[in-house]
Amino acid sequence: MSNFTVHNRRTLLTGAAAATLFAPGLSFAAAASDMVAIRKAAEAGYDASVKRIQDWIALPSIAAENRDMDKGCDYMMALAKDAGFQHVEKVPTDGAPGVFATLDVGAKRWLAVYFMYDVKQYDPAEWSSPPLEARIVDKPGFGKVIVGRGAVNQKGPQATFLAGLHAIRAAGKKPPVNLVLVCEGEEEIGSPHFRQVVTKPNVLAALKKCEGVVIPAGWQSPSNGGVSVNLGAKGVVEFELVASGAKWGRGPKTDIHSSEKARVDSPAWRLVQALTTLVTPDGNNPAVDGYFEKVRPLTAREKELIALAAKQMSEADAKKALGVDKWIDDLPWEQALERLASQPTINIEGLVSGYTGPGGKTVLPGRAVAKIDLRLVPDMTYEDSIAKIRAHLDKRGFQDIELNVSGGYDPTETDENSRLIRAQLNSYKRLGVPASVYPRLAGSWPGAVFTSPPVSLPAGQFGLGHGSGAHAPNEYYVIESSNPKVEGLVGGAMSYVDLMYEIASIK
Amino acid sequence: MSNFTVHNRRTLLTGAAAATLFAPGLSFAAAASDMVAIRKAAEAGYDASVKRIQDWIALPSIAAENRDMDKGCDYMMALAKDAGFQHVEKVPTDGAPGVFATLDVGAKRWLAVYFMYDVKQYDPAEWSSPPLEARIVDKPGFGKVIVGRGAVNQKGPQATFLAGLHAIRAAGKKPPVNLVLVCEGEEEIGSPHFRQVVTKPNVLAALKKCEGVVIPAGWQSPSNGGVSVNLGAKGVVEFELVASGAKWGRGPKTDIHSSEKARVDSPAWRLVQALTTLVTPDGNNPAVDGYFEKVRPLTAREKELIALAAKQMSEADAKKALGVDKWIDDLPWEQALERLASQPTINIEGLVSGYTGPGGKTVLPGRAVAKIDLRLVPDMTYEDSIAKIRAHLDKRGFQDIELNVSGGYDPTETDENSRLIRAQLNSYKRLGVPASVYPRLAGSWPGAVFTSPPVSLPAGQFGLGHGSGAHAPNEYYVIESSNPKVEGLVGGAMSYVDLMYEIASIK
Repeated sequence: MSNFTVHNRRTLLTGAAAATLFAPGLSFAAAASDMVAIRKAAEAGYDASVKRIQDWIALPSIAAENRDMDKGCDYMMALAKDAGFQHVEKVPTDGAPGVFATLDVGAKRWLAVYFMYDVKQYDPAEWSSPPLEARIVDKPGFGKVIVGRGAVNQKGPQATFLAGLHAIRAAGKKPPVNLVLVCEGEEEIGSPHFRQVVTKPNVLAALKKCEGVVIPAGWQSPSNGGVSVNLGAKGVVEFELVASGAKWGRGPKTDIHSSEKARVDSPAWRLVQALTTLVTPDGNNPAVDGYFEKVRPLTAREKELIALAAKQMSEADAKKALGVDKWIDDLPWEQALERLASQPTINIEGLVSGYTGPGGKTVLPGRAVAKIDLRLVPDMTYEDSIAKIRAHLDKRGFQDIELNVSGGYDPTETDENSRLIRAQLNSYKRLGVPASVYPRLAGSWPGAVFTSPPVSLPAGQFGLGHGSGAHAPNEYYVIESSNPKVEGLVGGAMSYVDLMYEIASIK
Repeated sequence: MSNFTVHNRRTLLTGAAAATLFAPGLSFAAAASDMVAIRKAAEAGYDASVKRIQDWIALPSIAAENRDMDKGCDYMMALAKDAGFQHVEKVPTDGAPGVFATLDVGAKRWLAVYFMYDVKQYDPAEWSSPPLEARIVDKPGFGKVIVGRGAVNQKGPQATFLAGLHAIRAAGKKPPVNLVLVCEGEEEIGSPHFRQVVTKPNVLAALKKCEGVVIPAGWQSPSNGGVSVNLGAKGVVEFELVASGAKWGRGPKTDIHSSEKARVDSPAWRLVQALTTLVTPDGNNPAVDGYFEKVRPLTAREKELIALAAKQMSEADAKKALGVDKWIDDLPWEQALERLASQPTINIEGLVSGYTGPGGKTVLPGRAVAKIDLRLVPDMTYEDSIAKIRAHLDKRGFQDIELNVSGGYDPTETDENSRLIRAQLNSYKRLGVPASVYPRLAGSWPGAVFTSPPVSLPAGQFGLGHGSGAHAPNEYYVIESSNPKVEGLVGGAMSYVDLMYEIASIK
């Protein structure tokens, strides 16, 4: 893999160009020569950086299956040590352990970075190559990509961040900021214990010194290389609704012969009836009693930002990436983006009842399960949303339907004027990447843990690079981009290096 | 297994008792001595008969999975030859092959028997012992039972019928009637090709000579040993309803990240909405347009028969066997039985969509499937019921929801005054078993193939013995009964022998 061609604007970042960029905080000479040397080191370290992603993918920690959590945590700790973190600490929780690490170089400022070492479940039968093999394939229009579970969510981007640290060290430099790493192994089940990690006294004290928290991301648009700077993210709640003969006191307790339906109640029909009440007939809007009470409408500034983003982002790309022909209600692009940012959702993740194999089987199931997730917008809260769903079901006589919450967190918001957000925008501008400021990410991450007390820090995704297929088969991450507008692994690593320098120098 | 104790009234059937029973058709001496000798032979053959069931269970043919269909058919043919059938023929169909066999002893009358060599799917994880091991266990209150897939549905009762034939031969006798065996391997998927078997010219010609068709059954009540003589059975249709982004043109074509729900339609919600329209809010009555048009209400005679049956059958047993505390609408026993006989049903066999494993997974599924079965009463038909469901969905805008039928058949009815039904009642009476005449079985079997043209024969279940758990885990069949009111394998075999003698002699 040493014969790759670098299609990269960052090779031009030398001399005068660099000097204009880092003027406020670093000397002309220091900034310019650092960046040149670090880029060379990142290129030299490419093969090792690719292997670092592949080796990591080979060890999947899956919290939902309680699979290899300790191994994954130990591996995460080894990766941090290897990248230069001096203090690396396992943080036990009531669930899977977290990791806390610091890299203190005596710099003026501190920056925090958030990692997760768990990945989503997968079904190898659905994949074009084994999901743990992290095979490198040529993806037309993209370049060389790693295909594997966790490739883009989050091992690829995280390993790209680490590649930046390795490059800084290999260039004989020190990071321009001190770093705090906080890491969990339960992101994919809703981060039920991550608050225990960040509120551990020594962890909290370290975080309190930071300018903000960065989450590595490989979300460049494949058409124009554009990125979003998100000023927050929706919250999420995941739960199961379970109808069962055992709880209901009607219907069978196990699966019985389906001819009995004529005289025996059906928990599966009961679940269907209860589900129907939760949304409007088109399935697109929550219909839970009082559900919109706390929903804060978009502000004028938020609408303005979305209108700008709509112009910068490619609707065709978005539809193609999702395999979707039409948005809800055939909405135009800008309105679809407004919905994405502002609309709370009740989504069916999965349905399971009775016989689920090939063909049919004449049973009347004793149990039926809907796996649901809610996405929350400010000022909705995790606790209140669950309570409203429960009350809604109870009011309609569905007290017997169990609501088993597995995890989730509140929405998060970060000030557009914080040093972290301004630094991200400055870096993207310098790197020649179109960046739209987007009021709220539709996806969720445990940002509220950072943005709300006691941590109370700005927090947001950042990074160049591209991947897709999070939570889906054939998840991939571009390591060598054939698209001049999109960065591969080296360019991605350099984006993190750039941000560190920017944080160090911004006013 | 040779040390079992016989709790059995049939050992008393000697001399004068037998003479009064078979007086019309057979001589006093012949009937009496035949029955004594055959019973002794059945007892001597017990171990071999048990092994015959176990060996058969060890080879599961599962049409839904296209598993070992040819092997299962060959095995069925070998069993028929072994039991004395002289002509044994594989009957190819467009699906799994059937079997046609005859045992012609030059008797005056012919009797047909229906077998299936396929079994329902199973999940070994749900079983207390491996479902193919056919382990013999002591079941308190029942005696020694075989636990395995197909134990009661239908390998146990069928092998019990064969045990009767083996006993007749071992006693040096010939069956008192000639036999036709028709057999299929697709009963559990709705018998899509069985009509091809029975209408094959030589098969049809043989069936036309018969008094009727017997289906072996092990359905004695564990409390009083009672049985039902069913004058027909409901029809059945099995199908999948599939909502998908691919067919709908809305929503995703594969599973995508659930945060997209805010702007992307959901096939899973669409399925739920469509399902809701099919039944009343309690899930208990079809709400499909015009669905009751062809439903014939119970006649006065049918209600009378159900009222009699309600007195003879144990409600407590039925509830216990099903694990059900209450009937629909808290109906009393007689009304619950009326519903069971008269009510058409729309049942959810299974629900499958998106993520179905442990915990959650934040996906918006591209596809959602409901596995449905309908039970039909006269004069509903298979074709008309499917058409009504389709029209109902179409009328409500659900044209995109696929309706994929996997099989089924019309309801069946047999005349209470036919020689087959009268012979069954005579046999049960002689054997000291309380028999209720029940207008219609809620379960389904491809009886319409026999009762409607061109075959047009009486047809119905018959047999002593007990088992339960058809289509469920831990299916069992009693081989040695500890309950004096219920027959084991030997008593069951003798009930078929008795019926053959009765058919031979009845006016």
